[in-house]
This record gives sequence, structure tokens and C-alpha cells, in this order.
Amino acid sequence: MKVVVILSGGVDSSTVAYYARSKAYDVHAITFDYGQIASKEVHHAMMIADRLGINHKVINMSSLRSLLENNALMNDSIPMPSEFSPSIIVPFRNAIFLSIAVAYAVSIRASKVMYGAHGSDSSYYPDCRKEFYDAFQKAARLGTETQIEIDAPFHSMKKPEILILGSKLGVPYEITWSCYLNKNNHCGVCESCINRKKAFIEAELYDPTQYER
Amino acid sequence: MKVVVILSGGVDSSTVAYYARSKAYDVHAITFDYGQIASKEVHHAMMIADRLGINHKVINMSSLRSLLENNALMNDSIPMPSEFSPSIIVPFRNAIFLSIAVAYAVSIRASKVMYGAHGSDSSYYPDCRKEFYDAFQKAARLGTETQIEIDAPFHSMKKPEILILGSKLGVPYEITWSCYLNKNNHCGVCESCINRKKAFIEAELYDPTQYER
Repeated sequence: MKVVVILSGGVDSSTVAYYARSKAYDVHAITFDYGQIASKEVHHAMMIADRLGINHKVINMSSLRSLLENNALMNDSIPMPSEFSPSIIVPFRNAIFLSIAVAYAVSIRASKVMYGAHGSDSSYYPDCRKEFYDAFQKAARLGTETQIEIDAPFHSMKKPEILILGSKLGVPYEITWSCYLNKNNHCGVCESCINRKKAFIEAELYDPTQYER
Repeated sequence: MKVVVILSGGVDSSTVAYYARSKAYDVHAITFDYGQIASKEVHHAMMIADRLGINHKVINMSSLRSLLENNALMNDSIPMPSEFSPSIIVPFRNAIFLSIAVAYAVSIRASKVMYGAHGSDSSYYPDCRKEFYDAFQKAARLGTETQIEIDAPFHSMKKPEILILGSKLGVPYEITWSCYLNKNNHCGVCESCINRKKAFIEAELYDPTQYER
């Protein structure tokens, strides 16, 4: 089965890519430079795709920054919080990614699009919830006249469970990137670094990440 | 009311922009360079927005061409037809535009997104149909936790009716661009030029367009 995987280069999406590969899917990954401060995540996605030996496309749409400047992930004059805050929501980001991924999937006749929405995020991010992506799937089927499927295989898992699964699948977490900043190492204090740290601790796994703090 | 209008610079979307303005909406237009051969339509959208004196953003995502090369609008090695053919469908294009427009609308607290889907296109293009954009609206509301509205005000009108309405609203059709090619003048023979020509004739309106043929 041919699938499109939305790959940001972080823990969750990298594990999705490895999971899809473990199912013997023909994986076509897609990564977005959408104007995020942490533009280096694109490089980390490239490393993951390279390690997996899968087809990988990078889409540059960094001019979205001119539209979506009211969030801390895209505007460095907004303080970066260490816990969830509405200021870190990029509105409808997953829908933008899913729309392009669906178009790509239809273009290459892939039967589904996979993304890394999971249970630790769904209470905070509405576009990670099953009710959202089920509705999106309906729109996608109507809008493409296909039976395209939107699949978030980890939707009922928490982040530590994803790490445990990924460790078994051999995901090289040392080359993934979670930090919302763009420093040499993970800052260790932004919301995403905190979640990453906590997940490794809760999963009782060695954390290979170099944190600045 | 603040609204986002998806403006391609063609007849339909330009009329939507004028229509929205006639309702005294605070209009924020958005145009996409998505890698289409007819990249000059972006310039025509700028002229329309300038004429209306509205806020206007242009998003460059021409790297989509690397994903979506199986259609005649984005790949000049595919023959350009003079009547509808599946080869002119850019899959899920309106969903890509709508996703970004919704994100923009949420970011600037606009209450709806308007686009130019209409009755002459809906039988050919699934992402112009009411059932599609109603489903998309549902996904958008779930994915943003807002009551954002997707509005295609001309969904029950045919193209000649749009021209008649637009003429009353003062739309400067001489500066709109419909052609799928990127020549000095409208080619006059692609599917979009044929539809434009026919619509002016059926509307019994003077056609100000310079066609090459």
C-alpha cells in the first residue's frame, strides 16, 4: 500500500514513518517549512527520511509567516512558554498539512495519509482530535472523489507509549528534533522540550537528547 | 464583518471580492502562487485588490509543483485542453486554499472565508460543490474551535449570472485573468478562455478581453 506520511522530524511523526515502514507500506514523506522559527526541524526530517531510505518532499511555504504571526512558534517577539498556552497554537496547521498531503496522495495514487496526532496532544490541539480528522476525511473524500483515508495511528496513545513503540522499531530519536527554537541543541525549557523530556522519563527510556538546560 | 476572500484574479473570485465589498465587509484577500503555469494571475489579483483598496496577501508555495505535476495547469508538458478534461484538475486545490484562508481568518479574527465556487464548475470540480465545502466547514469548526463560516455566495449561479452581477458592481473585468497559459494576452482556446468567452456571450455583455485567437 502506498501512503503519504506528514513528517516534521519530531518524535511523533518520525515514529509514524517508522511504523508505516514496519507495515511494509510504500512510504512517501512530506515536510513543510511553514515559516516556523525551528526551521532546522526540516533538516531533521530529511535525516529521518534518509535513514529510512524513503521518498521525501520538502515544501517551502515560509511566506505563511506573513499571515500567521500571532503565535510563538512563528514570531520570535512572542514569549515562548514552558507549558501549554494558546500562544503556541498555529491555527489549523494540521489541516494545511493534511490538505497538501491529500492532494499529493491523490496525485501519486496513495490510499492514505498518516500523521502523528496522539492522545497527549488532543486535549490541547483541536486539529489533533479524532472528531476533527474524521470530519476532514469526509471533506477529503467529497473533494477528491476518492476513498482517501486519514490515519492517525497513535491517536489513542500517549507520548511515552509512542516512544516505547518507536524504540522497538529502531527510531533514531537522537536525530529527531522537538524544540520550538532553532538553537544548536534542544533548549530544554520550551513546552515541546518539556514534553519530550517527560515522555522519555515516563517511558523509562534513555533520552539521547542534548538539552541546553 | 471581517472576511477573508480567496482571490485568484479571475472573473469569479474578483466578483466575490467586489460582492463582499458591496456588503460593506472588511475584506482581506489572499492569493496563491501554487506553481501554476499562469503565474501572472497573481499580478492580476494584485491589480483587483489595489483597485478595491483592500488588504491583500500573496502566498508563495510554488514548490507544490514538485508534488502535483500530473495536471495541465502546472505541467507544461501535458497538453492544454479546450474543454473539460480530468487533466486540468489540480487535486484538492480549493481545500489547500481554504485551509490556509481559515488559518488566516482565525489569526485575524475574521468570521468567514469566501470563495468563488459556482454552479458552472460544480459538476466538474468536486471541491466546488456545496457538499464538499459544507463538510470542510465542519472540519474547520472542529479544527479551530471557532464558528468560522465557509461561504461560496455564487454556488447556485452560473458564470453568465456572475458576470451580470459583477457588471452592476463595477468589476473591472478587463484587468481579470482567466487563461491557464501565461502569454501576453488570453490564449482564447484553453478550457478557461472558452468558458470566459461563452459566459460573456450568454450574459450579453461586452467582452473586454484581448484573446490571441
